[in-house]
Amino acid sequence: MDPRDDTRSARAIIPLMAQQSTPPAALLETALYVSDLAEAEAFYGGILGLEQIARVPDRHVFYRLGEVVLLLFDPARTLEGSSNLDLPVPPHGATGQGHLCFSATAAELHAWVDRLTEAGIPIEADFHWPNGARSIYFRDLAGNSLEFAEPRLWFEGS
Amino acid sequence: MDPRDDTRSARAIIPLMAQQSTPPAALLETALYVSDLAEAEAFYGGILGLEQIARVPDRHVFYRLGEVVLLLFDPARTLEGSSNLDLPVPPHGATGQGHLCFSATAAELHAWVDRLTEAGIPIEADFHWPNGARSIYFRDLAGNSLEFAEPRLWFEGS
Repeated sequence: MDPRDDTRSARAIIPLMAQQSTPPAALLETALYVSDLAEAEAFYGGILGLEQIARVPDRHVFYRLGEVVLLLFDPARTLEGSSNLDLPVPPHGATGQGHLCFSATAAELHAWVDRLTEAGIPIEADFHWPNGARSIYFRDLAGNSLEFAEPRLWFEGS
Repeated sequence: MDPRDDTRSARAIIPLMAQQSTPPAALLETALYVSDLAEAEAFYGGILGLEQIARVPDRHVFYRLGEVVLLLFDPARTLEGSSNLDLPVPPHGATGQGHLCFSATAAELHAWVDRLTEAGIPIEADFHWPNGARSIYFRDLAGNSLEFAEPRLWFEGS
């Protein structure tokens, strides 16, 4: 066996391994965009009861959702990009109606219909998917489409 | 003590309890909007290596990210709303540059810089936050701002 064969094999394998990154295993942050952060705080913190973990007036408010952080931004500010050379966060920002779905048990869904209705938030849709999981849809005050759904919609046995 | 006091207390407590829903404990779905779904599949499935779990041509492609589902939609289609009376998903859809961050270890971040660079995807920013966690930023082909970050950015000890 020609030893150069081994050399060629090693050369062929190295770039292949470098390309095989492990796929992302988990989400760390997701974002929605809102035009009025004070209104958003009243909604996400007050009505939904999420735990606020960071806040910069007129720019953003962040909430913890289990192992994920929900970022709410005023896109007018985040589209400017960062002026901090040590933390050069790239510009971003969207307009329109984004979408998020929170996980909820059947009993929690029932309680949320009552809670949202009491708070004057209309339930825009309420139905069961073909696999039996129930979803309810409503909107934040910026028009983003929010949902509570049973996790078995996607994950059998959960 | 007048027994009617107990009655009044009970009446006062019941509506209060109905208002106190448990805050959402976890995210189930998040969404980004893209103008070209075939291009998005090549990026999210091909380059990032995410596991595809659903696909409707010209409307959406969904990926699993641990216990969360990442929904990629063409907003031109989702803004139309549903024509299925049994599954009346409300209209939604955004334009501009959304944002998501994937969780990655220090070693995975290192591998992703190589993998993205090899794939011709520029690293737009690469820095350490004040608490030491590293983030890298890049964009999908629709312009959404994507990030890999060490989870200790938000969750100490992780």
